[in-house]
Amino acid sequence: MDDSTAYAAALKSALDGMAEGGIPIGASLVVDGKILATGRNQRVQQSSAIHHGETNCIENAGRQPASVYARSTIYTTLSPCFMCAGTILLYKIPRVVIGENTHFQASEDLLRSHGVEVVVLDDAETKAMFETWMDANPSLWNEDIGEED
Amino acid sequence: MDDSTAYAAALKSALDGMAEGGIPIGASLVVDGKILATGRNQRVQQSSAIHHGETNCIENAGRQPASVYARSTIYTTLSPCFMCAGTILLYKIPRVVIGENTHFQASEDLLRSHGVEVVVLDDAETKAMFETWMDANPSLWNEDIGEED
Repeated sequence: MDDSTAYAAALKSALDGMAEGGIPIGASLVVDGKILATGRNQRVQQSSAIHHGETNCIENAGRQPASVYARSTIYTTLSPCFMCAGTILLYKIPRVVIGENTHFQASEDLLRSHGVEVVVLDDAETKAMFETWMDANPSLWNEDIGEED
Repeated sequence: MDDSTAYAAALKSALDGMAEGGIPIGASLVVDGKILATGRNQRVQQSSAIHHGETNCIENAGRQPASVYARSTIYTTLSPCFMCAGTILLYKIPRVVIGENTHFQASEDLLRSHGVEVVVLDDAETKAMFETWMDANPSLWNEDIGEED
């Protein structure tokens, strides 16, 4: 599966989240050329503080042995926060493909310093989608990244 | 509330987790002298890859504004993994009190490098409890920290 196809599943999950009234950040986890799981931010839908796009995706993938994570790539529409980066480091996911890092970036140096391959697609559709949402929902977005208006 | 009282709630949650057949790692979150939430690892109970003691505690605390986290201390029976440390960094929790770091330690330097105060109690009861459990459940423990037998 190429990055473009796998990333499309992450972006679709973000858009599904927006349609639900949620924060539009989505992820997909690909192992051995197949999408093992997708996920999206659940702050609104589940009133969750820990289900970001990436962590929700990893939760949806279920309990997996280390050897599965070692063969995986995680796709995410927005550059990971420290929680999601820490989850990637915990499970030693070797490769992260990011839709965009214009509207948030915290952990890319940390990931690279631990040997994770970080690819930034700089996807125009994702950037436009997220900017429109963010501008309309500043308080919700700040809450999600541990900031306050 | 002193550290000893707040820590006792984290240890109780770890012991409750063990009684449920789970991984005995617990946490408590204290804000303004009161326990806002406790939590414990849910790998077995909820088949979860992301509910560690600390993340489950933060989830149980509900959606909170940054100003609440800024006044909090998190107590945990075992030194945080990168996922839990990343969650602490995301929400800018300024102080972490750890029961023991003999059986696991990954993130204390990362936390300190971001200005988090890290206190290690080196609690004998916690160490004995966790060692007994870990020796009896090596595969489950390895799975929880992204390792494989």
